[in-house]
Amino acid sequence: MDFKKEFSETIIPINREIESLISEVENKNLRDAMLHYPKAGGKRLRPIFTMLIADAINKSGMKALPYGVALEMVHNFTLIHDDVMDNDDTRRGMKTTHIVYGIPGAILAGDALFAKAFAIVGDMDLNAEHKIDLFKLLATSVLLLAEGQQMDMDFEKSADVKADEYLKMIERKTAVLMSAAAQGGAIVAGANLKLQKSMFEFGRMMGLGFQIWDDVLDLRANEKKLGKPVGSDIRNGKKTLIVIYALETLDADKRKRLEQILGKLDASKSEVDEAIAILDSAGAIDRAERIALELISKAKVLIDDLPEGEDRQKLKDLTDFMIRREW
Amino acid sequence: MDFKKEFSETIIPINREIESLISEVENKNLRDAMLHYPKAGGKRLRPIFTMLIADAINKSGMKALPYGVALEMVHNFTLIHDDVMDNDDTRRGMKTTHIVYGIPGAILAGDALFAKAFAIVGDMDLNAEHKIDLFKLLATSVLLLAEGQQMDMDFEKSADVKADEYLKMIERKTAVLMSAAAQGGAIVAGANLKLQKSMFEFGRMMGLGFQIWDDVLDLRANEKKLGKPVGSDIRNGKKTLIVIYALETLDADKRKRLEQILGKLDASKSEVDEAIAILDSAGAIDRAERIALELISKAKVLIDDLPEGEDRQKLKDLTDFMIRREW
Repeated sequence: MDFKKEFSETIIPINREIESLISEVENKNLRDAMLHYPKAGGKRLRPIFTMLIADAINKSGMKALPYGVALEMVHNFTLIHDDVMDNDDTRRGMKTTHIVYGIPGAILAGDALFAKAFAIVGDMDLNAEHKIDLFKLLATSVLLLAEGQQMDMDFEKSADVKADEYLKMIERKTAVLMSAAAQGGAIVAGANLKLQKSMFEFGRMMGLGFQIWDDVLDLRANEKKLGKPVGSDIRNGKKTLIVIYALETLDADKRKRLEQILGKLDASKSEVDEAIAILDSAGAIDRAERIALELISKAKVLIDDLPEGEDRQKLKDLTDFMIRREW
Repeated sequence: MDFKKEFSETIIPINREIESLISEVENKNLRDAMLHYPKAGGKRLRPIFTMLIADAINKSGMKALPYGVALEMVHNFTLIHDDVMDNDDTRRGMKTTHIVYGIPGAILAGDALFAKAFAIVGDMDLNAEHKIDLFKLLATSVLLLAEGQQMDMDFEKSADVKADEYLKMIERKTAVLMSAAAQGGAIVAGANLKLQKSMFEFGRMMGLGFQIWDDVLDLRANEKKLGKPVGSDIRNGKKTLIVIYALETLDADKRKRLEQILGKLDASKSEVDEAIAILDSAGAIDRAERIALELISKAKVLIDDLPEGEDRQKLKDLTDFMIRREW
């Protein structure tokens, strides 16, 4: 699938809506800080998933657009706050919001994007029960996001993170907004609870698979295509599923060597390559890759609960695309 | 009115609800940070206003309690984030959340309290239309709060703030949650739009009056009763309505002297007294006090739109209490 070709038309009204809604904010400094990430572009995956599912059910993709935009606002709000919390200066080559607008400005921009997301749902042309379902889905999702981010911060201080804890963390930190995107599309389309749950589960599997794939990619991708140095997770000492698997099975010597390189911010390329070789020798990268592929397969099976048609096929293609190497 | 005697019974279920709802959060660090301010007590003014108004209309105060609690969560969320933004180490004699739990922990606790507020409204036993009205009121209120906080930050860098800009700022930063409390109580009670608007306006007037009174109090109160040094706004260089009025009318010499002392964090008591005397000589403190009293009077007139009875009288007494010196 050629993402650009397939979705560039869909992205236009999404972007128009995002910019128009943020432009309603009166204070210029606040408005500019809120727009900093959204105006830099992005794939708009969450609105696209929402709209594709609503379209597949009963062609109500455009009706679901504002909810997708609300999710995009929530996504950007969490990026802004996460960047402050993680003390990151750059995101995809651009300066982070707090570097440009200061920490107070960035905190506030995040808060305002979050509030705006709810305001958007409030203004949707939708029956009252469905609107409440969307509100609740959004609220519980952000609560889970906060729990996931706190778990992630807790893990940084913990020597011993188990695979199931890691999966629980990324389920909350990454997959939850994908679930909210997928179930939300079904809610707007008026789907019954069974289909809503299938879509929630689809989003969860796809989000988990995507995150684990992302960890694999960090070690195996072509640097140019990745847009950041290969092995940056190793330099940052990130305890990904791959690292957790490896630490479970490595002998003492290799384990010790891996732990020496992990988190060494100035590790040389040959050290990073050595760490990758150790992870590979433990079979940990292959194992994570297999799990990611399995999750994506399971996600695709759930798509079959949607009515057959062009939109359903597009959704399958997009799900495959989520773990495409050239991504 | 003896606040403790009058409302200690009301505060018990409010506090129980707050603690029980936050205890649902799974992650201990997140939960503890969320509870840091709420468990330190507080007057719970917003829930009390909400419940009193709902009671005055049709004895639905207890039904409105969760919404009041949601507002209290929003209030605490803004306190946490404001303290990070303002770099404040203490609040009412206790360490601020970010001092105890770190800046990342505090940002996240604020986000989670905000999300929880919406989740609470989602779980209320209320008809769908009213629930949506509460969601919308909450969302637009937080958006305005963010605009108010940004204005406040902008003012710190601005030499020339006008009285009407200041009033707009405190309307958003302080009064908006009082409006949301008052209108929300009316919504839960099923009041018509006219009464809802009266209550919104009541909250606005009362909130504005209270904030201006607070600025007056900072200069005139007895230090022991105030719980912080008299004139701390002067040392912090806060451009209150009083300062703005004075700068409008003072001659060049006095204006210059006032500006020398304003924002001087280590100003001596005699310097602070001198600044207060200058503000007084301009009639600025009296002028602000008159405006606060007028706003509270206007707020009280709006209370008469509620059905006559014991609860309405309590609401009037509480409104008077908001600007009582011993407060």
